Amino acid sequence: MGTDQPHSREIMTDLYELTMAASYFEQDMYAPATFSLMVREYPSKRSYQVCAGLAPLLDYLESFHFRPDDLEYLEQTSLFPDRFLQFLETLRFTGEVRAIPEGRIAFCDEPLVEITAPVMQAQLVETFVINSINLPTLVATKASRCLHAAGERRLVDFSLRRTHGMHAGLMVARSSFIGGFIGTSNVQAGKMYGLPIHGTMAHSYVESFDREIDSFRAFAKSFPDNTVLLIDTYDTLAGARKAVTVAGEMRQAGESLRAVRLDSGDMVQLSQQVRKIFNDSGFPEVRIFASGGFDEFKIQKILTAGANIDAFGVGTRMGVSADAPYLNMAYKMVMYNGRPVMKLSSGKISLAGPKQVFRQRTKDGFFKRDLIGLLDDDIADSESLLMPVMKDGKRLLPSEPLPKIQELFRKEFALLPETYKDLEGNPNYPVEITPRLQALQDQVRKEIGEKELGLD
Amino acid sequence: MGTDQPHSREIMTDLYELTMAASYFEQDMYAPATFSLMVREYPSKRSYQVCAGLAPLLDYLESFHFRPDDLEYLEQTSLFPDRFLQFLETLRFTGEVRAIPEGRIAFCDEPLVEITAPVMQAQLVETFVINSINLPTLVATKASRCLHAAGERRLVDFSLRRTHGMHAGLMVARSSFIGGFIGTSNVQAGKMYGLPIHGTMAHSYVESFDREIDSFRAFAKSFPDNTVLLIDTYDTLAGARKAVTVAGEMRQAGESLRAVRLDSGDMVQLSQQVRKIFNDSGFPEVRIFASGGFDEFKIQKILTAGANIDAFGVGTRMGVSADAPYLNMAYKMVMYNGRPVMKLSSGKISLAGPKQVFRQRTKDGFFKRDLIGLLDDDIADSESLLMPVMKDGKRLLPSEPLPKIQELFRKEFALLPETYKDLEGNPNYPVEITPRLQALQDQVRKEIGEKELGLD
Repeated sequence: MGTDQPHSREIMTDLYELTMAASYFEQDMYAPATFSLMVREYPSKRSYQVCAGLAPLLDYLESFHFRPDDLEYLEQTSLFPDRFLQFLETLRFTGEVRAIPEGRIAFCDEPLVEITAPVMQAQLVETFVINSINLPTLVATKASRCLHAAGERRLVDFSLRRTHGMHAGLMVARSSFIGGFIGTSNVQAGKMYGLPIHGTMAHSYVESFDREIDSFRAFAKSFPDNTVLLIDTYDTLAGARKAVTVAGEMRQAGESLRAVRLDSGDMVQLSQQVRKIFNDSGFPEVRIFASGGFDEFKIQKILTAGANIDAFGVGTRMGVSADAPYLNMAYKMVMYNGRPVMKLSSGKISLAGPKQVFRQRTKDGFFKRDLIGLLDDDIADSESLLMPVMKDGKRLLPSEPLPKIQELFRKEFALLPETYKDLEGNPNYPVEITPRLQALQDQVRKEIGEKELGLD
Repeated sequence: MGTDQPHSREIMTDLYELTMAASYFEQDMYAPATFSLMVREYPSKRSYQVCAGLAPLLDYLESFHFRPDDLEYLEQTSLFPDRFLQFLETLRFTGEVRAIPEGRIAFCDEPLVEITAPVMQAQLVETFVINSINLPTLVATKASRCLHAAGERRLVDFSLRRTHGMHAGLMVARSSFIGGFIGTSNVQAGKMYGLPIHGTMAHSYVESFDREIDSFRAFAKSFPDNTVLLIDTYDTLAGARKAVTVAGEMRQAGESLRAVRLDSGDMVQLSQQVRKIFNDSGFPEVRIFASGGFDEFKIQKILTAGANIDAFGVGTRMGVSADAPYLNMAYKMVMYNGRPVMKLSSGKISLAGPKQVFRQRTKDGFFKRDLIGLLDDDIADSESLLMPVMKDGKRLLPSEPLPKIQELFRKEFALLPETYKDLEGNPNYPVEITPRLQALQDQVRKEIGEKELGLD
């Protein structure tokens, strides 16, 4: 699993994680701290989150160590005492992790991951923790919105060329699969994650032949079992008629044309016209695959307008989560050495104390409301979402295979009331704070006020 | 340089690159093709692009080869004949590359990179080419807009926690430096690229001490030469007064407090109040550093409103290019085997033929207009922007050091007329097509029409 990461992951971090660690070291501060990862607010038009990114994060924590060349670099910066760098050499992650499993649906303010470890460890991993969960959550959620818009039609990840780098390409392939996609064009993701891979031809392939129909025939010869012809290079309807000719030749040879791909133009009208051309020519089995600028909004729009499309390649806008390219996600200390803590910075307050999320359901199993409470809150008829996944720096269970995670997501998604799936957003799923957790906040805030605000 | 990439970069590609390659192989098609990378339209509010991402792309092309475990995976997919996989084993990139150098400013429709190689090679690298240039161009451009808004104030990349994965974090650190930033919080980017690294403390550090002032004292003790105190954990003004106390203690010890950091609240009012607190207490040398949701728009807004800030940490919105998280960037075949080609797909037409970009300047050196022409067009008083950078698969020159690239960018940026730097956008810089290039388009389009559109 480690190959999805450039190899110096431990210094793939913000410098301040290391300066703070050096200061903790100097102060002999090794007490345990709990940090909580949560999303502070929904991006516009979103109303829920599909959890994703946990398994790669656990890989990182389990193998956490500073490499000799990283320590050499840190030495060269002259920022750190030798004693501290020697200490880093043997540092491993020995903490515990509780998390909402991948594929489950969560809501704002709910802790997605809680990490408890000696303060330096829990702090040093901050940058990687946020980075590991932020994009996967965005993308799994966006994929689920595409799935909702596409109904029974199949969706394939086509985003790699415009993801933000190669690591993002892998994260997107994995996360969109969790959110209901059937596969990806990303070959490396196919290799690493065992995902089905998809793809056929580009316009350049068509152009490199003297005539369009020659390119169709050549491709059918190379891939007789998996021929999808791209028909919009010059003119979509003329392309469709040439594809019919090739479909006829394939049928005579005992083969069959699987699909044609549309990549530009008026998808509603063209898909209907192309469907009619194939139906009228006796090829009702040839599927229509569409790509080019799709996301949940464009899928919904053209299907509502009557487009006749069997599957979509969904690329750039899903892969960069174009309408919401980041989450207001934070990893905040909530307890240090047994003392609940919070910051009061305006607009950025977090909830003190280690927490649990409790979900209540209707008798048919539909989501009714969530409660964020203290770890030992006792909430009747509820399910606890945060599960222990790591103890003493070791995973408690191997990660689930991705098809299992997708299955969990599909089961969850079916039980999320329709109103929260609206593409225009309905961020009103009830998430409440338990009285005991609220009482803790009031108490911590009062203590801070007394200690810090009268001091000047 | 190779460590910024997960190591199987050759199959970090869309499957269709490989299916097309297999078909070319079966058809014995090895003729040279030229592909051109260009941006089709400006994202909203942008009017120019800062070129970035070329050196990592050249690294990839120079070391292009399929690894044994990648070929094993491809074999397991059962999509490809053995003969083709054996051929891939020895395949290297042997082509030539012409490109606009990193740090230069370019405009829409202008080819940024042109690659000429046997068709299979030029095609196989497509996904990586677009991926390598798309995000760096977006980010270098956004960084330059932040620079324009910030004037003489210093800018530091703080984006790593919310970049789309770790590779993006490296790309953003490198590209924002090209666009005028002075450094990054990303330690790995410091190591890989020799960039200055910056960072101090988080709110959690403050909270882990019993009292805020204890955390200030501890940090000053650990980093007496580089103390920047984060003062907004509980109350910014109370924090500033505690920082004054610590600044006094440092002065007595012969040290000095370098800066304080604000991360929330009304930046205009708070920065003025904090400035006054330090000035009135006899510490006019303590700088004010601000972070928290900055981009070019927020920087401009608070400076216009009178904020008193010396430097900015610019994070998420720059690192994901939040207002424009992708470019409509395409890599299109423009010539195959000596025959100029183009596609006619609606809204996605590209210019046939290998090209050059010619820039004309005023007598003071300011940008006047660009012309896109044929390679052998002869344009008076112009400078050719695309330079040969690789031949026979080898770099012609080593890549420039990043400070040199930033220097080139700063020189260029000073000569871009102010009107095109407007943050609201002015996408009207004149880019014209030469008569000979236009004549070629007309001819190719006519030929395609005759050959393809009457066929049905």
